[in-house]
Amino acid sequence: MIDLPVRRLGLGEPGDAELTRSVAVEAPVSVEVGGIGYAVMMATPADLGDYAVGFALSEGLVATADQISRIDAHAIEGGWALRIWLPPERNAVALERARRRVSESSCGLCGIENIEEVLRPLPPVTARIATDRTAIANALMALPDHQPLGRATGAAHAAAFCSPAGAIELAREDVGRHNALDKLIGAMARAGIDPASGFILLSARCSYELVEKTVRAGCPMLVTISAPTSLAVERAADAGLTLVALARTDAALIVGDPHGMIA
Amino acid sequence: MIDLPVRRLGLGEPGDAELTRSVAVEAPVSVEVGGIGYAVMMATPADLGDYAVGFALSEGLVATADQISRIDAHAIEGGWALRIWLPPERNAVALERARRRVSESSCGLCGIENIEEVLRPLPPVTARIATDRTAIANALMALPDHQPLGRATGAAHAAAFCSPAGAIELAREDVGRHNALDKLIGAMARAGIDPASGFILLSARCSYELVEKTVRAGCPMLVTISAPTSLAVERAADAGLTLVALARTDAALIVGDPHGMIA
Repeated sequence: MIDLPVRRLGLGEPGDAELTRSVAVEAPVSVEVGGIGYAVMMATPADLGDYAVGFALSEGLVATADQISRIDAHAIEGGWALRIWLPPERNAVALERARRRVSESSCGLCGIENIEEVLRPLPPVTARIATDRTAIANALMALPDHQPLGRATGAAHAAAFCSPAGAIELAREDVGRHNALDKLIGAMARAGIDPASGFILLSARCSYELVEKTVRAGCPMLVTISAPTSLAVERAADAGLTLVALARTDAALIVGDPHGMIA
Repeated sequence: MIDLPVRRLGLGEPGDAELTRSVAVEAPVSVEVGGIGYAVMMATPADLGDYAVGFALSEGLVATADQISRIDAHAIEGGWALRIWLPPERNAVALERARRRVSESSCGLCGIENIEEVLRPLPPVTARIATDRTAIANALMALPDHQPLGRATGAAHAAAFCSPAGAIELAREDVGRHNALDKLIGAMARAGIDPASGFILLSARCSYELVEKTVRAGCPMLVTISAPTSLAVERAADAGLTLVALARTDAALIVGDPHGMIA
């Protein structure tokens, strides 16, 4: 978080003022895997260790956090370097994934093949929890306490993992909603919290990549404060993810609950 | 826009209900340049012709819209194919840019080189307009009339081009804020509207890529409804872009106005 001098331009009272506003940090984070540049992500450079673990899990570079040998994060000119070290046998997977990413971004394949690559089948959701509307309302009411960056800057998303009763067990923030979710997934893996044991609450709009990350993490239910997109709805239905959108403390919309987890 | 059956889960009155909600379409759009797969973007498949032009301009594939020979957009299995055809001498630029994109996504460069690549210098803003707070308020008040998708779904961003007096000349919507801006830039190029002649208003949070697209389009001022990130502020200051954030009809924050364009 950095402080920024700004000029308030008022129409009527209270009129103009010179103010200081807090701004969320967005910085380029160069993710390197096994010594090879893998991606540059724009992210808030906090909880980068959690981010590294969640990124490696979400990308399929590792199946569990303990397959990561070492993580280094440090500031470099213009941004951050986040170095993830894997055991030698895992580096081949990373190189293969890196090649796949290259082929996704520019490959000479036809449009159909490109799209099939992006919309790879998701593993079916097998975990089940029993929850209810009160749990969703409880989690929503507790969320602001876990959003110091969001409250100060108005420009950060939060991802929280909640028990079936709606208690927030962990939360992470980032300027990017997908980064906030990767940080949460990484923090849970490091803390030994099983994503199958509760639901994920996101302060953001529900686009397809949030559904995908939730499903790949093994969590059976996603609650978002804002509206879903069509692809998020389709991908959730295909995988069997319980999806709740436009969650408010007085109401929420069940977009899909294929396993009847919400009483 | 598609209609979706959902179940409203109420706490207290008015209680539960079976409802229909409109959902914004998010679909994979495979962008092909000169017959080569260039990128798969997740976007709302409306105004794809505008998107193609804006994408080609923002990516630096062409300098003007008339350098594009032909654009085809059609539905394919699982999404859309958007084919951009350039004259033979321009295809070399596209191939070079495609190679550059590959090197950005996975290249074996060190983190510093990767970040330098992402944060390439921006051209300085040279256009100047004369505007004032009333113009900003006027544009904000008119914006909802240009957001049919956003009003119906709650999941779409709008980008509008406004005259110095605050009249909205063109607007486009998309589930992705960067796509909405590319569509606007493309639509303006096709309509012969000079980005130097007014300001851009965005319904979204101000992250760095919106600053970059605005500057590269040649527009001297960006107004966003939500808060900026640190990198957006830095990049705007470096390029000399006038940046207004948290714009409301009764107040707005001037983050930077290096050329004194706001009276």
